[in-house]
Amino acid sequence: MELCGKPLSSRSRFSKPGLHRCYKVRGHSGKCSEFPYLEHLTRVAPRVARKIVRDSVMTTGAAWKSKDAGPNRIRRWVMLLSDEELLKLGIDMTRFSAVIVAKLREKAAQYTDCMQCAQKLTWLAYGMQNAPGPPDEIREYLEGLFGGIQEGSTTCLICLAPLDFNLFDKARRGKAEIETSHRNPRVHTPENIAFAHRDCNIAQGNKTLDEFYEWTARILRKAGYDVHKKS
Amino acid sequence: MELCGKPLSSRSRFSKPGLHRCYKVRGHSGKCSEFPYLEHLTRVAPRVARKIVRDSVMTTGAAWKSKDAGPNRIRRWVMLLSDEELLKLGIDMTRFSAVIVAKLREKAAQYTDCMQCAQKLTWLAYGMQNAPGPPDEIREYLEGLFGGIQEGSTTCLICLAPLDFNLFDKARRGKAEIETSHRNPRVHTPENIAFAHRDCNIAQGNKTLDEFYEWTARILRKAGYDVHKKS
Repeated sequence: MELCGKPLSSRSRFSKPGLHRCYKVRGHSGKCSEFPYLEHLTRVAPRVARKIVRDSVMTTGAAWKSKDAGPNRIRRWVMLLSDEELLKLGIDMTRFSAVIVAKLREKAAQYTDCMQCAQKLTWLAYGMQNAPGPPDEIREYLEGLFGGIQEGSTTCLICLAPLDFNLFDKARRGKAEIETSHRNPRVHTPENIAFAHRDCNIAQGNKTLDEFYEWTARILRKAGYDVHKKS
Repeated sequence: MELCGKPLSSRSRFSKPGLHRCYKVRGHSGKCSEFPYLEHLTRVAPRVARKIVRDSVMTTGAAWKSKDAGPNRIRRWVMLLSDEELLKLGIDMTRFSAVIVAKLREKAAQYTDCMQCAQKLTWLAYGMQNAPGPPDEIREYLEGLFGGIQEGSTTCLICLAPLDFNLFDKARRGKAEIETSHRNPRVHTPENIAFAHRDCNIAQGNKTLDEFYEWTARILRKAGYDVHKKS
């Protein structure tokens, strides 16, 4: 599938001319658009659409609400810039602790990877139980990228149980029950990103998924827990 | 071992006459004291001593720093009082969301359980690798309650690996590496309380330890992970 790729204008100070691109199919009609495949979810499930864009494009930071904590959310590609370039954008990295700097830098990702993550998350959302069915044009677009969309096929990255689209609307203490999760928390690419239950994502923490499995297996071995018993 | 048990005065509005008691051995010399077995740690590791008292006596609440979040830390036994009694103490439970009320109420514990939790945590701290050795009098007191203190015998409640006393001084992003943990997070008793690695405690979350083991075992089964392979 060939994409339009025409540059889009952006008013953000964190953007550069020519960075943002049109992700419609080449030769499309109508206006260019960066997230054409989110047009339907933006109408029927706007919170989900916003979450997909936010989690694809922005660093996280909800846990850093202290004074020296750094910018709460920032475009991931901005974190690829040098300290000098960031200073010109008004972000003084020397003000932040080493831990915060490391945390911010580890969320850095190329613009194109962020865009592909958004596509992948949209594809995954449509594959959830009770997800709305995508319009033909969007289905075709996403299936061209990642294969067939089957309702009920999207599972939690970590526990592998099917995810229900309605969980997007559920929240406990202001925290959504579905989170965006990474097989390796330090790699923001479509192969590496998925949705997960909040509890699962929290348990995985900063470990890779393989490290998490190995860690829990070690705990169960040590606890003498019979993994194969039926409860 | 018989304890003194004389009532101690308290200036807290959350206290009742006769609630606080002396926990020295009956017939002791010197002044009465609520936490005599912490006298040594208070001198050589004051942060650890303060943590033991705080985690034994107070509800947690670090995650609730929003306006409607309720009192950040409060004595656990206060949460045994009725809404009417709490209102007289200046705590209007109707101001808090149902989730916060449930969270507060589930941390409720009797004064005597809190005191025994503090004793147990002190005993466990002295059993850690690289812990300071307790003075004879304190060793005798704690061993009389819970059995022999052996350096290196205290393990993380969850992963069962030995805990190092020096981890009390380690923190990441302001969070200590050792947390107080409960086999069942809703039961605050000496049988049920212990120390754990922060990562382990976070992963366990609101589950009982048995539920956590079963949950991770289910995940590993589903992931087809060979628990018994050596990595």
